[in-house]
Order: sequence, then structure tokens, then C-alpha cells
Amino acid sequence: MNGAVELPLDAPELTLEAAGGARVRRSVLPSGLRVLTEAMPGSRSATVGFWVGVGSRDERDDPDSAAPGTFGSTHFLEHLLFKGTATRTALDIATAFDAVGGEHNAMTAKEYTCYYARVQDRDLPMAVDVLADMLTASRLDPDEFENERGVILEELAMAGDDPADAASERFFDAVFGAHPLGRPIGGTRHSIGRVSRDAVFTHFRARYRPDELVVTAAGAVDHDALVARVTEGLAAGGWDLGTPHPPAPRRLADEAALTRGADVSIEDRPIEQANLLLGVPGLTATDPRRPALNVLNSVYGGGMSSRLFQEVRERRGLAYAVHSLAPGYSDAGVFGAFAACQPSNAGTVAELVVGELGRIADEGITEADLARAAGQLGGGAALALEDSDTRMSRLGRAELTHGEFVDLDEALRRIARVTRDDVRDLAADLRERPWSIAAVGGVDAGTFRGVRDDGARPAASEAP
Amino acid sequence: MNGAVELPLDAPELTLEAAGGARVRRSVLPSGLRVLTEAMPGSRSATVGFWVGVGSRDERDDPDSAAPGTFGSTHFLEHLLFKGTATRTALDIATAFDAVGGEHNAMTAKEYTCYYARVQDRDLPMAVDVLADMLTASRLDPDEFENERGVILEELAMAGDDPADAASERFFDAVFGAHPLGRPIGGTRHSIGRVSRDAVFTHFRARYRPDELVVTAAGAVDHDALVARVTEGLAAGGWDLGTPHPPAPRRLADEAALTRGADVSIEDRPIEQANLLLGVPGLTATDPRRPALNVLNSVYGGGMSSRLFQEVRERRGLAYAVHSLAPGYSDAGVFGAFAACQPSNAGTVAELVVGELGRIADEGITEADLARAAGQLGGGAALALEDSDTRMSRLGRAELTHGEFVDLDEALRRIARVTRDDVRDLAADLRERPWSIAAVGGVDAGTFRGVRDDGARPAASEAP
Repeated sequence: MNGAVELPLDAPELTLEAAGGARVRRSVLPSGLRVLTEAMPGSRSATVGFWVGVGSRDERDDPDSAAPGTFGSTHFLEHLLFKGTATRTALDIATAFDAVGGEHNAMTAKEYTCYYARVQDRDLPMAVDVLADMLTASRLDPDEFENERGVILEELAMAGDDPADAASERFFDAVFGAHPLGRPIGGTRHSIGRVSRDAVFTHFRARYRPDELVVTAAGAVDHDALVARVTEGLAAGGWDLGTPHPPAPRRLADEAALTRGADVSIEDRPIEQANLLLGVPGLTATDPRRPALNVLNSVYGGGMSSRLFQEVRERRGLAYAVHSLAPGYSDAGVFGAFAACQPSNAGTVAELVVGELGRIADEGITEADLARAAGQLGGGAALALEDSDTRMSRLGRAELTHGEFVDLDEALRRIARVTRDDVRDLAADLRERPWSIAAVGGVDAGTFRGVRDDGARPAASEAP
Repeated sequence: MNGAVELPLDAPELTLEAAGGARVRRSVLPSGLRVLTEAMPGSRSATVGFWVGVGSRDERDDPDSAAPGTFGSTHFLEHLLFKGTATRTALDIATAFDAVGGEHNAMTAKEYTCYYARVQDRDLPMAVDVLADMLTASRLDPDEFENERGVILEELAMAGDDPADAASERFFDAVFGAHPLGRPIGGTRHSIGRVSRDAVFTHFRARYRPDELVVTAAGAVDHDALVARVTEGLAAGGWDLGTPHPPAPRRLADEAALTRGADVSIEDRPIEQANLLLGVPGLTATDPRRPALNVLNSVYGGGMSSRLFQEVRERRGLAYAVHSLAPGYSDAGVFGAFAACQPSNAGTVAELVVGELGRIADEGITEADLARAAGQLGGGAALALEDSDTRMSRLGRAELTHGEFVDLDEALRRIARVTRDDVRDLAADLRERPWSIAAVGGVDAGTFRGVRDDGARPAASEAP
């Protein structure tokens, strides 16, 4: 079969012959553990990822510091898993990958945490062993915990000193308000300063379980051998894989859960540029209009030929960096644009960001726009799929979020079915949603009065 | 042949059967144009780069604004080549690559400028046509010039607002002083604000010539077809390929030309972290001790198992980001380390950066260190060589800088010949060179008194 395959949580074995000679296999083990692989013919390396279905949005704050999941603890935990297990020191873990020239790292997102490594084919068993050990047998040593608290505070400080990062944190808070998706992934200086080792340990034990774990690998990988190695590694770390358990259910789309933050959120900072993010609530990751959204995102601000790049940078020379964005989550999404410019031009740039979306809603896009967007999305996907890390990531998101694996050919067919009307209708829908503006730099709320009074969106209450 | 091949400027044709089934070919055409390709079996995409042997160090400032090469004009020119030719508008150029999902960009360095594209195999001829048109027939339209001046000022502002970028500019100025390598690649707000279109056009016509151009490609590429397409494209843009000319000679190593900047260069900025760079004059890009330097760089600060990472981050929790660096140029180099930390810890971190190099000089490295570094360098190179863009870049640097192409197997042999004594001797040499410190953040010169008084380096004159 070539195209797409549903990923029901109770189907023990599935196979898909995917585009380009690749073969996707998936096993759901009795413990609820899922393993997905994509063998790429001719590859001499592999990328493997261990995905846990817990992210910053799953944290629950509680004034009692003994409660698990204080804000930022998921990311704190990700750091701690590199700090030593029952049988490996932090240096052992670092040396294992460095000694073979492998790349290894981890990322904490709003809805998942992923630990991954890219290595030559001969080193894949080692990578699985070390990652499995980290996930199951990390000690969270109290001294290491205090040390790492300092490292994370430095990571937060670095992000705080980066104006674009600071604008991004402010933007998600503005769009999502009190919703957990609005919180910074890393927590705050306050929450990281007070979280206890035992709270993080409780979070670890509660959420790192076979039924929450998805292991994906792509490149030079043999499915059966990988399944065997992963289960051996997890069992060696003390995980009970013998008790039957269904995989943890996927999060469900429910846009109604969304709350609203501020319409304008500004930090006046003495720097040269104003870093701007403007946007509206978008589409969930699994919304059936995602292919149309991908086309819209491409035409609006997805490359050097896009509307925003041409208008803001090429015609007017107002910004060096300008692009659109459309992240999606299980029950919400964001659609908007980033630009950095002189504070005196911030109002104009904001009007262009809102205005260009309005122009697509009013005038639609051309056949040439549609063809260019399809070419960009298809060509870009084809190039990206040459890398095993891209394929490994697609498998993880398919399993955790989409419930369906779509190969390149089917993805292109879906893009090809998008019509000009689909894109215009979507732009018309999005433009009417409440806009939020986040800015870091030498601007104030008055800067954006032109955007807020031009009728591009419903009036919203004044915010700081 | 398998291993290495010299690249004399007067050898019209060379071939190397390289590691992993790749085949490297090089043609020197009568006009002085050089074309190098590396065919990668099984690849369905290609990366092509047009390298011009001119960088920011080649600019000469002159109070008469009509003079070519005002600081930053090489980078300004790189931007302008995307703004339209005799037959293509800026939008045409952007659309050509976007419509096929290709990646295209350019970079200006201190000693070269490179325009490149990564595309699917079927799109390689198009990529060559567009890049050749940009290099030969760009108009540098005066209106577009004024517009792009604004874009570049925004790019400089963005870099200025980034504390790590700001520290880096300050660091190169501190190490190299009045030497052209010490200047920021993009110029300054002042130089970009005043440079004229005619000055940049003169720079363009003076330096973009067949004998200064190197075209390299890797992936799904046929050498003879590429040579034909490149020459057709350049001729179509009006370049004279009929007049015989030898290739421009390579720059020669001459460390004596180096001047010295400040020992401490600080910007007090109201941000959370101090962004530090400490270092000494290093080795040229072609220094025969480069393999030993690569090992030293790996052991000192090249990964999570390195001395700096273990000491500064893992044991003491003082920084999130800490790593060493060892860039090389034709006649100079730099060796040092970057870290970002709380201003109150900056003195301690600086002492550790100097102290860990001293410890390697005093105590040497272990056999395990040496083996790990060799594994890291070899494994990392093997993984990197799966990407056609890495191979394309290696070919360009081999031709422009090294005068020799070295395949992976030979590179590993050279690393394997490095001894523990080589590394210790090199560390002992480097530590005695004059240290420079650059910092952006809440620190002052007194912060680094401990580093400057501990005898780790000869005393140097006080500087701002």
C-alpha cells in the first residue's frame, strides 16, 4: 500500500510501503509501548527518538510545593535525564555519544518531550541502550538537581535576553491567556527557583510509562531488531513491560477550551528594533483544513516570494526578518507573523501584516500563487525527507498527534486538492478572529492604534 | 586514487575516487573559472554553490565616498544580487526557487562570498541558470539599492540587539585590532548609511570575474553537464570566458601580518547575562597542526563530554551555553571559548576558560581523551557527509583556501596520527599567546582582574 495508514491504538502490527522505496512499520506492544520505524534504502546512519506524551501544558501548579508538575518541571526533568542513571554518570552519557561523533539532544514542547540521537548505523544499538537507560533509571540526584537548577536559570536568562524569544513568550500568553498552552515551556525564574527535586521525581514516575512512550527511528534501521533492543533496554532499567496496558489515548481536539489573553502585550526595552508578533487563534494540528492552511501560510509569509516578504522587505525595506507561522496543537493553534523593524515603523509593519491577510481574504490568490505554493510545499518536503531526523520526527508526530501516517505522495495529493476558494475562505475566517499583538522594543500601545482601529478585527478590551 | 589530491591552479582536469563511492572532479577552464563536483551515488538532490574569492577583509576604506569597497559593501552586494538582473526581477528570482521548494541563500564571510541552492536533481539546471544570471547581470538598480540599504540596517540592528552577536563582533576586534580580519562583516551603521550605489557597483565589476569564481556542486550531479551549463549561464550574462586568464592566486599564510587589539573589550548592557568570549590568536586554516587543533578543540570545549562543558556547566552549573571555537583564515586564526553566565560569575567562568587550557598544557590529555576526540571528529564527519550541502562547502573551501581536497578516509588518517604530545604542545603554545576578553552584559574590566593577574598570559596594555 502506498499513501496513508490510520494508526489505531489497538492494532498490534501495521506496515506501509511509503514513497521513495521507504517502508514504515509500527508495533503496539502489550505494555502499551509503541515503536515505529521507517527503513530508508541505502542509508548508512539512523535517527532514533524516544517520545513521551507529556509537555509543559500538562503541568499543574499548586501552592503546596510538594505537588508534582510545577511550571517548567517537564523541561527541568528533560535536563535531569542527562545527569546520570543507576549505572551511568552524566559524563558516561555524554561520552557515549561524543565518542562516536553522534548528535544527541532533547526537546520539551507544549505537548510532548523527545530525546533523540543521530548516529552511524553500527552505533544505533548503543544509542537505544543509553536513551532507554536515561528514560527508566535516571537518579535525579539531589546535588545534581541543585546544580542543574542553576543551568536552567541560565537558559531562561539567555532566552530572556533574546528579544525575539521574549516576544514569542509574550505572544503565546497574549493569544492563549490562562490556557496552559499560553505558558512558557521552561517555566519562570520564580517556578524554577522553588520547584523541589521530589516534585520533579514524582512527575517523572507518574508520566514516564510504557503506555506514554513512543519510540521512532528512521534510516538504516531493522524494525524487529529495534523493537527487541528497545524492550530489552527498558526492561533493564526496571520498567514493567509484562503488565498489559493500552497506549495512552491521544489528546482530542476541542477548540472551545481556548481562553483569550491580551490584545496588545508590550515590553518596552531599550534596544534598536521592535520585535513584533501578530496573530489570531489558528487551526488544530489535525484540522481537515490543514492542507489549505499550509498553502495560505506559504503564500502569505512562507518564503522570499511570499506576500509579506515582498511587501515588507522587498518593496519597502522595512525589515530584514519577516515571516508567517502556523503552529498547531491537539485542541488549538496559532496563525500569525513575526517581523523585527525600527520602532518608528512598527505601526506600519503591523498594518501590513494584518492588511496582507485581509487582501488574501478580499481578493483571493491567483492560480500562479497556488501552483507556486504547491511546488514549494512538495519540493521542500521531498528535500527534507532525505534526512533521517525529519522522517523520525514525522513518525513521532503522526503517532502522538495525528493518529495517521501520511507518506509524501499522499501529502502532495492533499495539497493538490486545495482550491483557491479554500484558501480565500480560510483567510476570511482567520482575519475575523481576535488579533493579539506582542512587541518587545521601543514601542507602546499607541503604536498599534492604526491596526486596532481599522476594523480588521472586532474591538477587544484594553490590556497592558 | 583514494585519499587526497592537490589542487594546483594550472591543472586543467583532476579526478579523485573518494570515500563512500563518491567521485570528485575538477576542471580549470581557460578563463580561470574553476568547477568542482562530487557525485554521490543514490542521491536525488544536489547542492550547488557559486563562490567568489572576495570577503569583508578585501574592502578598503577611503574618505572619498566614490572609492570602491567601503566597509560592508561586500555583504551589501550579496544582498543586491537577489534584487534583479537584466532579465529577472527580484520576485522572479525568489519565485524560481520557491516554486520548486528549493533552499537558496548566500553568505558573506571574511574571505569569500557564496551563493548556493539545494534542489531536487531535476531542478539543478534551473538553479545554475538563476545563480549565473545573478552573478553576471545584476543591475544594482538605484531605487532597489536605497530600499536594500534599509534592509541591511535592520539586519545590523538585529545583530546588535543579540548579545552573543554583539560579543562576537567585539571579540574579533579585540583579537585582531586594526587588521582587516577584525572588522564586522556587515559593516557599521555609519558605513552602510553612506556607501553609494556606484561604489558597490565598482566593487562588483572589479571582483566578480571568471578567475575569482569557483563553482562547486555535490549530490546528483554530472560534472560535464554542470560545466557546460555554468559556462552557458555565465556567457549569457555577458561574461567573457574566451580570454585566457589563470585563476586568481590563493591568499598566502602570513601570521606576521597580524596586529593586536584590546586585552579587554566590554559593553555594559542592562541584560541578565554576561556574554563572554575569551581567546588568543590561533592557527591559519592550512596550518599543518590543524589536525592536532581539531583534537584539542574537541577535548577542550567540543561537546558535552569536553573539559569546559563538564567543568563550567555539569559540575558547577554556571552556564547553559559554553563551547570552544577555532576558526581559521588564510593568514591568521583564533582559538578561544564562548560562555554566557550571570555577571557575578563572569570572573569565575573566565578563569575556568583560561585555566582548563592551562590544565591541558600542564597535564596533557589521556589516551581516552584522544580516542574520544578521534571518534567524535570521525563520526561527526561521516554523518555530515551524508548531506550534499556539507560536501559542496568542503569543495569550495578546499579550492579557495586549502589548495588540496581531502576525502573522509584521509582526514581520519590525519586525525589518527595526532599524538597526546602534539595536543599538549599546542595547548602550551596557545596559552602563552596574548589573551583577549570580550564581554557584553553587566560587567566591567575589574571583573576579569583575576584572569589577567594570574600569569596565564603575558601582561598586556590596559584597554577600554
